[in-house]
Amino acid sequence: MSRRVAIVGGATTPFGVRPTTWSELAQEVGAALFRAVPPLRAEDVDSLFVGSAEPERFAFQSHVAPLAAEQMGLRPHRILQRTELACASGQSAIRSAYAAIAAGLSDVAVAVGVEKMNLPSMAEANSSMGCVMDRAWDGPHGATAPPFFAMVAQRHMLEHGTTPEALARVSEKNHRFANTNPTAQFYAKTFSSEKLLGLPVVAPPLRLGDCSSMTDGAAAVVVVGEEFVRRFTDRPAWIRGTGQYSDFHNLAHAGSLTQWPGLTRAAGEALGRAKLTIQDIDFAEIHDCFTISEIVEYEALGLCPPGEGGSYALEGRSDLGGDIVINPRGGLLGCGHPLGATGIAQAVEVFQQFAGVVPAARQVPEPRFALVHNLSGSANVHSVMVYEGGGGP
Amino acid sequence: MSRRVAIVGGATTPFGVRPTTWSELAQEVGAALFRAVPPLRAEDVDSLFVGSAEPERFAFQSHVAPLAAEQMGLRPHRILQRTELACASGQSAIRSAYAAIAAGLSDVAVAVGVEKMNLPSMAEANSSMGCVMDRAWDGPHGATAPPFFAMVAQRHMLEHGTTPEALARVSEKNHRFANTNPTAQFYAKTFSSEKLLGLPVVAPPLRLGDCSSMTDGAAAVVVVGEEFVRRFTDRPAWIRGTGQYSDFHNLAHAGSLTQWPGLTRAAGEALGRAKLTIQDIDFAEIHDCFTISEIVEYEALGLCPPGEGGSYALEGRSDLGGDIVINPRGGLLGCGHPLGATGIAQAVEVFQQFAGVVPAARQVPEPRFALVHNLSGSANVHSVMVYEGGGGP
Repeated sequence: MSRRVAIVGGATTPFGVRPTTWSELAQEVGAALFRAVPPLRAEDVDSLFVGSAEPERFAFQSHVAPLAAEQMGLRPHRILQRTELACASGQSAIRSAYAAIAAGLSDVAVAVGVEKMNLPSMAEANSSMGCVMDRAWDGPHGATAPPFFAMVAQRHMLEHGTTPEALARVSEKNHRFANTNPTAQFYAKTFSSEKLLGLPVVAPPLRLGDCSSMTDGAAAVVVVGEEFVRRFTDRPAWIRGTGQYSDFHNLAHAGSLTQWPGLTRAAGEALGRAKLTIQDIDFAEIHDCFTISEIVEYEALGLCPPGEGGSYALEGRSDLGGDIVINPRGGLLGCGHPLGATGIAQAVEVFQQFAGVVPAARQVPEPRFALVHNLSGSANVHSVMVYEGGGGP
Repeated sequence: MSRRVAIVGGATTPFGVRPTTWSELAQEVGAALFRAVPPLRAEDVDSLFVGSAEPERFAFQSHVAPLAAEQMGLRPHRILQRTELACASGQSAIRSAYAAIAAGLSDVAVAVGVEKMNLPSMAEANSSMGCVMDRAWDGPHGATAPPFFAMVAQRHMLEHGTTPEALARVSEKNHRFANTNPTAQFYAKTFSSEKLLGLPVVAPPLRLGDCSSMTDGAAAVVVVGEEFVRRFTDRPAWIRGTGQYSDFHNLAHAGSLTQWPGLTRAAGEALGRAKLTIQDIDFAEIHDCFTISEIVEYEALGLCPPGEGGSYALEGRSDLGGDIVINPRGGLLGCGHPLGATGIAQAVEVFQQFAGVVPAARQVPEPRFALVHNLSGSANVHSVMVYEGGGGP
């Protein structure tokens, strides 16, 4: 019914605690994008999709879509918008570009994610993170991200005997991958499982190394319709499927803490549209905002039976040489998690893996299919995209 | 190339200073939507697009898309997102639904706009409105909306001899239309031109009646693919074209204050896709955030030559019985301007005009084509949609 769409290039700023403003991050990623994608000309970009979660609070800046356009040197003449879906804001921007191009409303678009999270006061940033939850009912109980995911971890340990060592194994893997990624917040920092198990506790049982960070950063990709692909590359990342699911917001409406059927459903939709199963996927960038998230996600994606996510990690089945490579970019744990930029940076990794340009230490051998997952809020919304490399569908 | 898409129903909450929260407005508009569109079943709604400008500041609530879904009784299983484009956030949600449906990614979607602007402290709300501008460069100069549009008015008066009476004529017309609209903030309040010319000055030459209000409210529409239309109505509003343009953000990069080529370009794109000209349009909902905006918009849309917008208003050419009916709903001046809800409420009016269900005092005679315009920020972004009523294209 609709036109094929592909990502044909991308770039990421260094992630970390950056002494820059929101605007400067947008400008920086624009410059990086034009360097990374030489055939890209500003006048050919008809649309701009901006993913950003909370610039109104973190940067006291709203109406960020035209601001990003200006900073990047773009003048969108078809579609311009910002999407917000908390931690999945970036993927939402890519999905919007995909829909617009597939529908014929755009030909050459940029999807960019920008987040400036580190404020002078960390208390202010933490408080702003709290407005991702239901403010009237969950907020007063202090239900921000670390306590929620700590409850998930405690319950997973109780039900399935999952161990701190399994959590640490996820963190060790993702930090190891991040050491191949100079844009990662924790590049050039090594974390053995032993070291991770000795870090301070944030919310029991989660220690510092179990939690992704407050991070500043930006990432951008070029998304185009099929007839424009060859102008840019002969190794595009074709978008083959997309899915999302939302079944609650208020925590009182959540079902099991340890089973995330919304992810199963969103991945089913995305894989179904791509006419694939999870067994076809060579590598995946999934939302390891906390180590326990990645473990529950193995299960919800059907990589292993419910309850066996901890063993799956400990056995190295999500590592290079295992069943599937999970988070070769370094994940949110290793790269940091600038909310709106994360989903775009994951897509940059997908493009670069297919193009074969990542360092050998994280290159997935001859990948053909990839999946990207983001959750948002209290894992109440799941967003999934499926990509195919090479000649495409 | 892509599937035809139509709006098949909608509803609006009362607009005004509402003693309700953001969540309650979402719940209220959900109930209103299901009452207004009896064939709508929650389980058939696969996607939800939420337009909201600044819930993070006005309501200390982010991640509003799943919150709205929960409050409306929806469980989106295809696409869920919030769009933000300041004062055009609502239209952005409709455009996203249109693209997703045209691309085959959604079949039956709801686009909802919600804004809770009236805080206990008006100073806080006004300060938050300031973050729509470039915070680092324009914010310190106090360049919020009223001063900016006052400069536009002063310059228009200087260049073209536009009078306060012409401004008042726009306000009188739109307030008169609002008196046919029980959901309007200024329903049952009459404003003659004489009365309007005596109201207090906000930013010279703009008086209170020249400015749209801080308003709480919500609106929602049902957007479906062509094969689902007849399930809902035999008088849909077909989406025929869409266009946006952004050419600056920082005020130092603005060109003329009194000519808005971005609107000309956005409308050209939308009308061109619809294979129409502005002369084909029977009525239009355009962004009268200030009276001077509507006057400049007459000119930028090509309804009259540059500089003649004031005369156009004074001669009643934008009134019932004139060349084209502008803002029969009552406009932002008469209805109030809850940022994210405005663009959706305009689309509700388009649907209801085509369906012939508005009060006779504002019914456009046998309308076939309609145009909706929103600007955002310092008129630096223009967003336009074109609709066709009846049997459709």
